[in-house]
Amino acid sequence: MREVVVIGCGMTKFGELWKKSLRDIFVEAALKAIDDAGVDHIDSMYVGAMTPGLFVGQEHISALMADYLGVAPIPAMRVESACCSSGMALRLGLFEISSGHSDVILVGGVEKMNDGADATFALATAADQEYEVYQGVTFPGLYALIARAHMHRYGTTREQLAAVSVKNHHNGAMNPNAQFQREVTLEQVMNATLVADPLTVLDSSPVSDGAACVVLTSVDFAKQLKVPLVKILGSGAATDTLALHSREDITALKAVKVSGEVAYKMAGVKPSDIDVAEVHDCFSIAEICVIEELGFTEKGKGGPFTEQGNTALEGKIPVNPSGGLKSKGHPVGATGIAQVVEVVEQLRGKAGTRQVKNAKIGLTQNMGGSGASSVTHIFQII
Amino acid sequence: MREVVVIGCGMTKFGELWKKSLRDIFVEAALKAIDDAGVDHIDSMYVGAMTPGLFVGQEHISALMADYLGVAPIPAMRVESACCSSGMALRLGLFEISSGHSDVILVGGVEKMNDGADATFALATAADQEYEVYQGVTFPGLYALIARAHMHRYGTTREQLAAVSVKNHHNGAMNPNAQFQREVTLEQVMNATLVADPLTVLDSSPVSDGAACVVLTSVDFAKQLKVPLVKILGSGAATDTLALHSREDITALKAVKVSGEVAYKMAGVKPSDIDVAEVHDCFSIAEICVIEELGFTEKGKGGPFTEQGNTALEGKIPVNPSGGLKSKGHPVGATGIAQVVEVVEQLRGKAGTRQVKNAKIGLTQNMGGSGASSVTHIFQII
Repeated sequence: MREVVVIGCGMTKFGELWKKSLRDIFVEAALKAIDDAGVDHIDSMYVGAMTPGLFVGQEHISALMADYLGVAPIPAMRVESACCSSGMALRLGLFEISSGHSDVILVGGVEKMNDGADATFALATAADQEYEVYQGVTFPGLYALIARAHMHRYGTTREQLAAVSVKNHHNGAMNPNAQFQREVTLEQVMNATLVADPLTVLDSSPVSDGAACVVLTSVDFAKQLKVPLVKILGSGAATDTLALHSREDITALKAVKVSGEVAYKMAGVKPSDIDVAEVHDCFSIAEICVIEELGFTEKGKGGPFTEQGNTALEGKIPVNPSGGLKSKGHPVGATGIAQVVEVVEQLRGKAGTRQVKNAKIGLTQNMGGSGASSVTHIFQII
Repeated sequence: MREVVVIGCGMTKFGELWKKSLRDIFVEAALKAIDDAGVDHIDSMYVGAMTPGLFVGQEHISALMADYLGVAPIPAMRVESACCSSGMALRLGLFEISSGHSDVILVGGVEKMNDGADATFALATAADQEYEVYQGVTFPGLYALIARAHMHRYGTTREQLAAVSVKNHHNGAMNPNAQFQREVTLEQVMNATLVADPLTVLDSSPVSDGAACVVLTSVDFAKQLKVPLVKILGSGAATDTLALHSREDITALKAVKVSGEVAYKMAGVKPSDIDVAEVHDCFSIAEICVIEELGFTEKGKGGPFTEQGNTALEGKIPVNPSGGLKSKGHPVGATGIAQVVEVVEQLRGKAGTRQVKNAKIGLTQNMGGSGASSVTHIFQII
C-alpha cells in the first residue's frame, strides 16, 4: 500500500459569490491547488458536491469540471455524502493512489447555494425524506433537538453553546477566505434571532458559495517535487441511521466516534497527539458533540471544555482555527476539502495570524446530515 | 496491486415499481447480491445514483442504504456521473480492494424515476445547464443531432437505427428482469411516435425504476468461498466536453473510445477477444456509435454492422443480450451495475435462453450525458 501525501491546496473565498458560477469557482480553486503543487498534469479527479441538481440545476459536474479545467479526457467522478461529500472524496484519492492506479489526483469540493434555490429544502434532502422531512423537520430543528437533549442530560448551558460561535468568529476574523471576518460576543449570539430553540442564527453556519481543492500523490512521486509534504496518516469513515429518531441516544454521534477510532488506529496516534483540528460545526452544538466523540474531552464535557478555552487557538487542542463552518462559511460540498486546506496550511506553518504554534499533526472531521455519515483524516508534516 | 473478482450479483426487476420505494429496491438488490456471494459481512459500500434529489427529494442515500441494509456503521458513499454513476462506482470498489484497504465491498446502483418528478428536466441536468438546457434542448434532441450527423456523414439509415431496437427487444423478451419483455418489428420502431427527428419513442430507452448490486473481493479472499469467480481484467474511465457543440465531431464519442482503450490495455485483450458486451444504448444511435468507438467495427460502419446481425445473440459480437437499456429499462443510476450483473451471468453460463455460447470474456460500457463520461470494464471467468 503506497503512502499518500497532500502536495498542493487552494480555495476560493467563501461567501455570496454572485458574480461567479459553479464552474468558475471550482476551476479557480483547482488551478490554485495545481499551481501550489507545482505539477504539470493530473491523472484523475474527484469532485465532492451535495446537490448541484437542486441548487443550480446541474448534475454531472465531474465531467463539466474536467472539461472547464482543461484536463479531459482524464477520469472524473462526483462523490456525494451530503455535507461530507468532499471529505469522503479525499478517501477515494487516497485509495486510487495507494492502489497504484494513479500517481497524481485532484480532489475538490464545490457548492453554489445562493443562486436562487430553496436552500432549506435542498439541505433537508440529507435527512430522511420519508420519516423526517415529510413531517416538516429541517436541519436547524434536528440539531436543536440534539442541543436540548445534551443540555438536559449533561447540563450543557446556553452560554457554552454560544462560546463555540464566539471562538470560531474570533478565528475567522483572521482568515481572508472566511465569509464572516468579524468577531461576535456571547451576548450577540444568545440574543440573535432564534432559529430553532435553543439555537439562534449565530449558532448556525451560513448559506455559502465556495470551492476548495487539494492535489495528492504518492510519497515516491513527491520526491521529485520541491514542495512541503503533508502525509495522510489515517482515514476513517462511518455511517449511522439517517433518521435521528432511530438512534439509541441522539446526543451520541456514533459515526463520528467510529470514523475517529478508525483514523486514529490507522495513523497510530491518539487524541492527545493532535495539535490542530478542523471539525464540523454546522451548528454550535455539533462542535460540542464532535469534540467529545473524537476524544478531545469526555462525553458530556464538551460545553465546559469549550467555555474554559481548551479549543481556542492557544488552548490544549485548537479547534477550527479557520473559523469553522460558522465563520468561514459552509458551501456544503466544499467544506471537507476546505478543512484539509486549513490543516495543510497550519502544518506548513503558513496560517498567518491564526497559526497554531508547533502544529505537526492535524485532524479533519466532516459529517453529513445529523451525523449519519462522518469522515475523519489525520495528517502529519514530513 | 491485488486482483479483484466479482463474487455475487443481484438486481430487481426493472420497470414502473409503484409499490416499492427507493430504499426498498436498493436493499432488495443488495440482499440478492450478498446472498449470491455467500459472504457474512461487507467492509464498505458504494451506491451509484444520478439524481435522487430531483427524482424523490432524497440525497445522502449512501448512509440511508447502509442503515436500511443493516450494515451501518460501515463506510458508504454515493457516486454520481449522470447515467454512468454505478459503472463509475465499480472502479471505486476495484481501487479500494486493490489498495488493500478493504476485502469485501458492495457496489450498487439505484434510481426511482417514476415517483412524480419531471424526468425530462431531471435527466437534462446531465447536459450543460448554462449552454444547452437553458436553450431548451433535452437528451432526445441531443442524440437526434448525433443521429442526423451520423446519417449525413456515414450514410447510416433509418432502418439501421431501428435494427438496434429490434435486436434489443428480441433479447429483452428473454429476460425476466426486463421492463419490456416483448419483441418489436422494424416497422413498429420506424412508425412509432416521433420524439426528436429521426428518433421515435421505440429508439429511446424508457423511464424506469430499479436497482442492481454486485459484491467484490480480492482473488485471495475469494479462495475460501465456493462461488464462481469473475475477474475484473480491465477498467477505463474518461471524460469529454459536457456540451455537444464543443466537440470537433459530434458523431465521435471520444470518452467512450478512451475508456475502451484504457480498459483493453489494462486487460491485455483486443476488441476481437470480447465474447459478449453490454453497452449504453440509451438511444438506438448511441449503440451504433459505441460499438464503433469500442472497435467492434470501423467508425461509420455501426449501422450496417448491426443490420447484418453481427451484434445479435448468435452474431460475431453479441451486444446487449440483456435487452440493453432499450428493452431491459434504464433506471439511470442502476444501469452500469445491471450491465455487470448481465455479463457475470453470461460468463457463469446462467443466462437462460439468452445465453451467449462459450462466453469467457465480457465487456461493459456505460456512459453519462451525451457521452461526456464513459466507463468500460472487462471481465473474465476464472
